[in-house]
Parts: sequence; structure tokens; C-alpha cells
Amino acid sequence: METTALFTANNVWMMICTALVFFMHLGFSFLEIGLTRQKNTINILFKNFFVITVGLLLYALGGFNLMYPGFEDGALGIFKFAGFGIAAPEGGMTTAYADGGYTWWTDFLFQGMFAATAATIVSGAVAERIKLNSFMIFAILYVGLIYPIVGSWKWGGGFLDAMGFYDFAGSTLVHSVGGWAALVAIYLLGARIGKFDADGTARAIPGHNLPLAAAGVLILWLGWFGFNGGSVLSADPELTSLTLVTTCLAAAAGGVASAIFSNILYKNFDLTMFMNGVLGGLVGITAGADQMGPTDAILIGIIAGIIIVLGIALIDKLKLDDPVGAVAVHLICGIWGTLAVGIFGAMAGLDQFLIQLAGIGIVGAFCVICSFFLLYIVKLLSGGSIRVEKEEELKGLDLAEHGMDAYADFRLNQH
Amino acid sequence: METTALFTANNVWMMICTALVFFMHLGFSFLEIGLTRQKNTINILFKNFFVITVGLLLYALGGFNLMYPGFEDGALGIFKFAGFGIAAPEGGMTTAYADGGYTWWTDFLFQGMFAATAATIVSGAVAERIKLNSFMIFAILYVGLIYPIVGSWKWGGGFLDAMGFYDFAGSTLVHSVGGWAALVAIYLLGARIGKFDADGTARAIPGHNLPLAAAGVLILWLGWFGFNGGSVLSADPELTSLTLVTTCLAAAAGGVASAIFSNILYKNFDLTMFMNGVLGGLVGITAGADQMGPTDAILIGIIAGIIIVLGIALIDKLKLDDPVGAVAVHLICGIWGTLAVGIFGAMAGLDQFLIQLAGIGIVGAFCVICSFFLLYIVKLLSGGSIRVEKEEELKGLDLAEHGMDAYADFRLNQH
Amino acid sequence: METTALFTANNVWMMICTALVFFMHLGFSFLEIGLTRQKNTINILFKNFFVITVGLLLYALGGFNLMYPGFEDGALGIFKFAGFGIAAPEGGMTTAYADGGYTWWTDFLFQGMFAATAATIVSGAVAERIKLNSFMIFAILYVGLIYPIVGSWKWGGGFLDAMGFYDFAGSTLVHSVGGWAALVAIYLLGARIGKFDADGTARAIPGHNLPLAAAGVLILWLGWFGFNGGSVLSADPELTSLTLVTTCLAAAAGGVASAIFSNILYKNFDLTMFMNGVLGGLVGITAGADQMGPTDAILIGIIAGIIIVLGIALIDKLKLDDPVGAVAVHLICGIWGTLAVGIFGAMAGLDQFLIQLAGIGIVGAFCVICSFFLLYIVKLLSGGSIRVEKEEELKGLDLAEHGMDAYADFRLNQH
Repeated sequence: METTALFTANNVWMMICTALVFFMHLGFSFLEIGLTRQKNTINILFKNFFVITVGLLLYALGGFNLMYPGFEDGALGIFKFAGFGIAAPEGGMTTAYADGGYTWWTDFLFQGMFAATAATIVSGAVAERIKLNSFMIFAILYVGLIYPIVGSWKWGGGFLDAMGFYDFAGSTLVHSVGGWAALVAIYLLGARIGKFDADGTARAIPGHNLPLAAAGVLILWLGWFGFNGGSVLSADPELTSLTLVTTCLAAAAGGVASAIFSNILYKNFDLTMFMNGVLGGLVGITAGADQMGPTDAILIGIIAGIIIVLGIALIDKLKLDDPVGAVAVHLICGIWGTLAVGIFGAMAGLDQFLIQLAGIGIVGAFCVICSFFLLYIVKLLSGGSIRVEKEEELKGLDLAEHGMDAYADFRLNQH
Repeated sequence: METTALFTANNVWMMICTALVFFMHLGFSFLEIGLTRQKNTINILFKNFFVITVGLLLYALGGFNLMYPGFEDGALGIFKFAGFGIAAPEGGMTTAYADGGYTWWTDFLFQGMFAATAATIVSGAVAERIKLNSFMIFAILYVGLIYPIVGSWKWGGGFLDAMGFYDFAGSTLVHSVGGWAALVAIYLLGARIGKFDADGTARAIPGHNLPLAAAGVLILWLGWFGFNGGSVLSADPELTSLTLVTTCLAAAAGGVASAIFSNILYKNFDLTMFMNGVLGGLVGITAGADQMGPTDAILIGIIAGIIIVLGIALIDKLKLDDPVGAVAVHLICGIWGTLAVGIFGAMAGLDQFLIQLAGIGIVGAFCVICSFFLLYIVKLLSGGSIRVEKEEELKGLDLAEHGMDAYADFRLNQH
Repeated sequence: METTALFTANNVWMMICTALVFFMHLGFSFLEIGLTRQKNTINILFKNFFVITVGLLLYALGGFNLMYPGFEDGALGIFKFAGFGIAAPEGGMTTAYADGGYTWWTDFLFQGMFAATAATIVSGAVAERIKLNSFMIFAILYVGLIYPIVGSWKWGGGFLDAMGFYDFAGSTLVHSVGGWAALVAIYLLGARIGKFDADGTARAIPGHNLPLAAAGVLILWLGWFGFNGGSVLSADPELTSLTLVTTCLAAAAGGVASAIFSNILYKNFDLTMFMNGVLGGLVGITAGADQMGPTDAILIGIIAGIIIVLGIALIDKLKLDDPVGAVAVHLICGIWGTLAVGIFGAMAGLDQFLIQLAGIGIVGAFCVICSFFLLYIVKLLSGGSIRVEKEEELKGLDLAEHGMDAYADFRLNQH
């Protein structure tokens, strides 16, 4: 039947997007280790492996059923749990499911790859000083409970959806959800030793491997083809291709704007600003990637790029320490992208803007409260502190927590 | 026609899977160089480039025709050669070929990308001490003859297929075939200088670039979307998406199980065990990825993860030296995955288990005998030894065999 | 409708190819930084980010409309500009557009990813000594004007197309266009300090990170699945799969031929020759990848591999300094591949050969003249020289132009 061919093509696209979103975890890994110090490399990689693997297992255990519980009345849907484990429903492999956009298995796996992302965002912000155990417990709770609950409010058909809130691929539901937790965590953790001088001046702590960081950004951009392109939830030719165009233009505009704006402010061709500008553009377009035209996308990207430069300066000013710029990229640009749906493109309008604002506020309040609460519990479970001892921080977490060196055999000039 | 659209969608999926399996060679390269010493980096990369390029050319020259010879009577099919070179048969580009799952060209390329994998597995195990010439001759013989002959017995419709042996994507036909050769080769080669103390205690020889090793594992996981997903041999929505779910859940479960189990045994958060656990889970699910449900996949992964930890300890105990853990990952988990088809999922049953066991034994015996025989020939052709001189090993193969240094210009602290 | 399913499958393929061509920019980045010195790493990455982002924005601003202006009379089409900005035409999202091979949005993005490539080729050749500002101005002019104008002559339906010139995926239109500019630029720039001894003998200046360079080559090979496979401009099963087979066989044959030929000449297993041979094979097959059989592809690759070895020696002989071998790979093999269309495969013949030769000459003359002219303008805009000061070159562009060190925190032997 005709249906089969279209269904197959749709499902192929969604499986590829799933693979691309999975691959973003290499992007995050490279970005985080590249921008931090060598002595914490193993620790960050361990956290990344933990987040992908445990995130996926938690999503199979209950996360998917918590996020897509089948609210009977969307207007009131706030919390519902469809039970443990995953099993394809009747017709889940036919075109009766999801308008033939994909199979139920693809649905699970695509959404499962998203789930781990929120915790990965936190991982970068808290790098180089959080206890491994503390991070792992927090990640389990945040990925297993908070992310799917918030997701259910919109993508699961809950009350945010009913009130008209729009978030195409997750500027708020993924990036801000991770970003809020990152903000709370770095506030509670405090800055790394050496980040601020006695008089409070922020000092740059350079990373140890910029090529890997740059590769991370390009891999993340590639992954965003799947992150946004797959959020169409079918291979609809017009919507998917428009989404890729807006995504790429916003990324390009974000990078260029950050590079120019930081050059104006600091008289320097700053590669990390360029890179973070690309990421800011990507996060910024994510909420409305299917609602924008090319010019909208470029404008959203430019503003995101400027926000990145200001946001990173602001974090420093607030005496917060975010080694990879996760709060500026994921939280601030996530908010910007969500608001932009009410300013640019097909849905622009004051009403929509206010709904977007309300959604941001509700999600933000929930995530901040939960993050404080969960981190308080984690602190109790971690012997009173979620931060490593001073000597461990100085020695590096690779030796302190793993007894390994990421480049143990590296030698110079063997000739 | 309808047929055309479905045929096109199927072929698109198979071409993407081909690309993903190709990309696994970067994963293998990164994994192998990351886990070994810097002084052998160029040598390992050279071997990887050799295996991909020569493997593909050999497969075009005769490997494909040896592996898919068109046995007339499957029950007796043990050896047949359909001739040199490749040329699409009549109808090879139409839906008359392979039930419209792909074109004949796609078939060749997808299978060709698999062929080189077996030699790559050997490459990691024999790293840091085998002569380059010896490896190259062995790889030509093993990829050009042994791999396609064994493959023909099952995937080419030979006697293993006729007796009901099941190996969906190659736990035995790819991973164990490579793993047996790796085992024989490291037995004949002996351990690297410094691997065992005078009293026989194994010492860890740390690798020089863990970030690349970790990237290798994530790239391999990505590649497995194509390795297993493509082994459906069409884009059938239900089977492909189920396969991706079982593949990813087994990978996740394998990694977590290895991390936990090694932590219990050794009181350490060991990143390389985590990584090898992921790979073990992937190899373990490969034989039955289309026959399992999510819970089966998780159980298979958990057991594979535990096997990895024990297997790596066992190799050490046997005074064998496998720098990247290839035997534990590819051989032992390949055996486990093949047996698992008889224990879990749709085909579980004692009869199937015994058939699986028989297939493992037949393939193992053939590969071990051939490996000994071929390595004996290679030894004769290599001036009596397949191992480099002691001083070459100490100096490193990069300088000894290539006159190059992989990081010749690397400098520190240029400020 | 049936049309929808086929259209969807086609568009899925083209979007994936777009993503793969995008990903080639990571391949170029890794290749370029891996083969050059550590002190210029940030600078090269900055240029790569610049080229991708600005290239895409320029293509949206006017490049696409300059390259595909809709010549009314192909035979006379030399220059036409369809205006600023991008907006999908009537029917651009339906099967009425491009025979249903893809949507207009996909068309834009696929072509946009190609556009930046030409400048990236130049980036590698001029590395380690060009002023960042000079490069950026030149890249804007070359990507914004020269590349789309030349492209319009063939792919836009201009006079090269009318005279029967064939260039499937851009051996001439992409690779030689970049290669000619690279040649002119390195002639004008002069060699890096230390490249030639007082008596004119060329000295190898080793790169700082061969693993990344090797990864770059494998990523580029992967990207070529999209570069050539997408140039079919639909997912036609026969043509796309044939194209992937010829592409991969040429890459493999090129690498092996370079490795063997350089081993004969220099008695060394040279990894960088192997790598450049793979790239040479890929560039060589690009002009006729859809017109060749497997044997043709292997022969084209072998000759490309030999050309690479000779070409790199020739560049040295001419006292030109091309740190990454861009001229040999992209220009010389681009010319070879374009000529090969007249020698091998379905279009072989003296007439076609002469047409190919004429096309190469016309494009070459135009690119050389434009490059000289544009670089002269850039020189004026750059304070009289496009080359950094001697002390900046010695110190490295990372510190001189960016005030950063790519591996600032890298330390050894932390145990």
C-alpha cells in the first residue's frame, strides 16, 4: 500500500534523527572536556557515559510513561504515570500510530535520546568540583523524574499544551530545564578554586584541548539536524527542510554575531565566543524552528549571539562559575528562543508572547524549586557536601575519584 | 509505482546504514590509539587505513562472490566461488532483487563495509608489537578468504543456515571471527615488554589518549545503528526500530553493569571498563537484536557487561596481552550473544541453544585452525618472526616502521 | 498519493546528504590542524568556523540566486543575479519542483553546504602565515561571488552546461575552484619560514596531531557519501548506490596506490601519503561518479593516488609551500577527475575529453585571474601585505592574532 511507503520513509527519517541526537552526546563530551582542565577529563567522560546509559535505562523503566502518560483531559494534565517498563501498544507499529510518522519503538528511542540531554547540560556547568556520587544521584532524579514531568505538561499533552504554550523542539523543555538545574547547582557548589581573585575579579581558567571543544560544537550542530529536524515527528518534506534551514541559519548568525560583538567589546578574535555563539543560535531557534522564515531565523540567531556574550559576562559578574558557559547557552538562550516564538514568525503576537512568558515562568519556578530540593537531598546522601575536598580539586578528579590519568602515556618530542 | 517509493525508502535506509558501518572504522581507530601508547599511534592508524581500503578492494575483487556465491543447495553449501570482480546482475537495480530491500550495489557496499571489521578487531589485539608487513599479509588473507567463507555458510545460504543457526548481524560471523584470530595472534605473539612482571603479575599499560578512546566507543555505538539496523536488509519500520531499541538498551545496560561490577570488585570508577561494557553489550545483542524485547536486551547487556569484567581478568590470568580488550569484547561477548539467541527472546529453546552452540564450535574450530595456519605462513614470509625486534618495540613502531612521530610538533605551555 | 511517498523518501536522502556535507567541515578542520603546527591551531579553527557560518549566510544573502539564476538561454548564460535573499517559489515544496527530488529549502541548504567548501580548501593551503583579516575578506569575496558565478555556468544551466561539459559533483566546480585560489594564494604568500633551506631544499614541517588528521580524512570520506550521493539530486536507487560504490572504491584505490607508490619512491610507510591518496581518489571520482563502473572507479583512484605523490613532490620543486597538500589533492586531482570523464565510463570519447579540457581551461583561467585580482584588493585593504609579520609567524598565530593557546592547560605525567 501507499501508506507503507510513506510510513517507511517517515520512520527512516526519525531513526536517523534519533541517531543524530544520540551523537550529540559525543559533542557534549568533547565540548566539556575541551573547555576544562586536563586533570578532570576522565571524570567528565565518566559522567557523560553515565548520563547516556543511565538516562536511557531510566527512560525505559518509567520516564517515557511519565512523559507521555496519555492525559485524558489535556487542560488539567499535570501528573500521571502510565506504569513501569515499555511495551508497544496495539497498532504501535502501524500507520494508526502517530499519524504514520514513526513506529512506537522509534518514538521511545527518539524521546529517550532527548531525556539524557538535560543532565548533560548540568554536567558541564558543575564540572571540576562536584562529587561524582552526588552528580550521579542528582542526574538519576532529574532525568528520571523532573525532565519527564515537565515534558508531559507540553509534549505529553498536559496543561502547558492546553494553554497554547509553544516549544517546538525544546528551548524550554530541554535546554532551560537543564539550564535551571545548572544555575542552581553552580550557585550551591561555589566557584572553582582560582576562578575569582581575592578582590572578586573573574579569571579565565583555560581549557586543555580546544580542537576537541571545536569538534564538539560542530558535532552538536550536526546533531541538531536530528534534534530539530526530528521534532517534526515525520519526514514531511516542507516542514523538515524548512526546519533544517532555520536551524542552520540561526547557528551561523549566532556564531558570527558573537564573534563580531565580542571583538568589538574585547578587541579579540575569540574562538570560544564564536563557538558558544553557534550553540546559542541553535538553542535560540529550537523553540520555533518550524515557525520561522530565513530572515526570522537569522535575526533570532544574531540576538542569541549577542546574548551569549553578555550572558557569559553576567555570570562572571554574579560570581558564578560555569566552566563551559552552559547557563548562558542553554538557559538564557533557551528563554530567548521561547520568547522569540511570540516575536517572530508565524505565531508572533502579544498573546502568544505572554503565554510563552508564562510557560517559561512556570517551568523555571518548578525546576528551580526541584533543583534546590533534590540537591539538598543529594547533599544529605553525600555526607553533607556535594563538593569534593580542596586537595582533591587541586589534584584533579581524575586521580582523586578514578585513579587514572587521561593522557598517562603522552610524551613529547620522541625524536 | 508504489513499489518504487518503498524501494527508494528501503534503499535510502540501507545506504545510510552503509555509511554508519563505514564510520565505525573511525571508532575502531580512536579506540585503539587511545588505549595504547603514543609511540605506536601512526602504526595503528596506518593499519586501520590499510584494513578499510584493502578490505573494500578485496571484497570487490572476490570476497563478495565468495560470501554470496548462490549455493544451489543450501544444505550442502560449504564452498563456492562466483568469480572475480563485481557486476550487477540482471534486475539487480529493481525490486526483483532482494525483495526490493536495496539495490545490488548497495548490497555489495553494505557487506563490503562489514568485511574489513574482522581484521580491525585483530588489529587492536596485536597492537604495539606485530610487524606491519606481517599484519598486512595476514589481514589480506583473513579478510579476503576466511571471513567470506565463514559468512557464506550462514548469510550466503550455506550449511549453517540450513541447520537453523541464527546470527542476525554477526556476533559470531563478524565479531567472533575476528576475535578467534585475535586470540591466536596474541598467543603466538606473546605479551608486550613490561606487561607482565617477572613473577607473572599483569601490569596495566595505560593508553595515551582516553578522550579519543571514549569518542571511539561513542562512534562505534553510532555505527551500530547501521550495523544492526541495516542487517534487517530493508527499512521495515517495525523490525528496524525494534532493532535500534534493543541495540541501544543492551549497550546502556552493558556499560552500567561493567561500571558497577568493576566498582564492586576493584573499588574504582573505571572509565575503560564502562566503555568496554558498552561495547560488550553491543556485541552481545548483535546476534539476536531483531528477536528480543526490551527486557531481554537489557538482560543480555547486563550479562555481557559482567562478562567483560571477568573476561579481561581472565585474559590477564592466562598471561595473554590484549591491549584494547578485543578478545573479551568481540570473542567472548560474541559467543555470549550467539548463545543468548537460544536463551532469550522469540527463538529461545534448548534446540536452538544447541544449534547455536554447534555453530559457535564449528566457526571457532575453523577460525582457530586457519589462523594458526595463516600466521605460520605469514611467519615464513616475514623472515621467521611476526614480531618486531625488542629495540623497535621499545622505541615504538612509529619511529621504527614509519620514521614519524604522531605528535611531532606538540609543545606545552607556549605562553 | 504515491508521489508523496517517493518525494518524501527523496527529500529524506537529500537532507541526510546535506548533513553529511556539513559534517565535512569537521573533517577539513581536523585535517588542517592535524597537519600543521600547534601554535596555529586556534587560528585555523577560527577560519573554519568563519567559512562555514559566513559561507552559509552569504549563500542565503545572494549566492544561491547568483548560482541558480534561471538562465533563460543556457547557451548564452554567463552572468545573472536573481536578487537578494531567499524565498521559496510557488510550488517549491511540491513535486513540481526539481522533479520531486527534494524541496526548494533542501535545495538551498544542500548547495549552501557546498559553497563554503571552496574557501575551506584555500584555508588549508595558506595556513600558518596569512593574516586572519586578509583571509576573511578573501573568503567573503571568493565564496560570495566567484564560486557561485562559476557554478552557474554548469549547474545553473549556463554556457558550460550548454557546451556539454560534465562535472557530476564538482571535481572542477568545487575542488578546482578552491584549488586554483589556493595555488595563487600560496604563490603570492611565499613559503613559511623554515620550509626551504638556504639552498632551496624543501624540509618537512611535521604536524602536531596526526590522529586528528587521520580522523579528518575518514570524516571527509564519510561526508563524500553525501557530497557525491546527494549530487544525484534525488534518492534514485540505482544512481545513488552506484555513486557510493564508485566513490568508495576510488577512495580505497587512491589510498592504496599512494601508499605503495610512495613506499617504492621513498622506502617508507607514509601515513600522510596514504591519507592524501584517499582524498585524491575521492576528488578524482567526483566529476564522473555516476558515469563509471567499479573497474573505472578503481583505475581513476589508482591514477589519482599516483598523481598525489608526484603532485606533492612537484609543489615542493616549485618552491611552493602547501602545508596540507591542498593543491595536489583538490586542484591536480580535480583536473584529473574532470578529464577522466572523457577517458573512462559511459561518456568516454575524444570529443568529451576535449570539452572537459576546455571547461577546465576556462574555469582555471577565470579563477586564476579573479584570485590575483581579489588578493590584490585584499592586500590593499590589509595594509600592504596579506602575510603576518615574521615575529608573529614564529610566535604562532594563536598568540599573535587570538591571544590564546589551543592546549593551554595540557600537562604531562600528572602521576
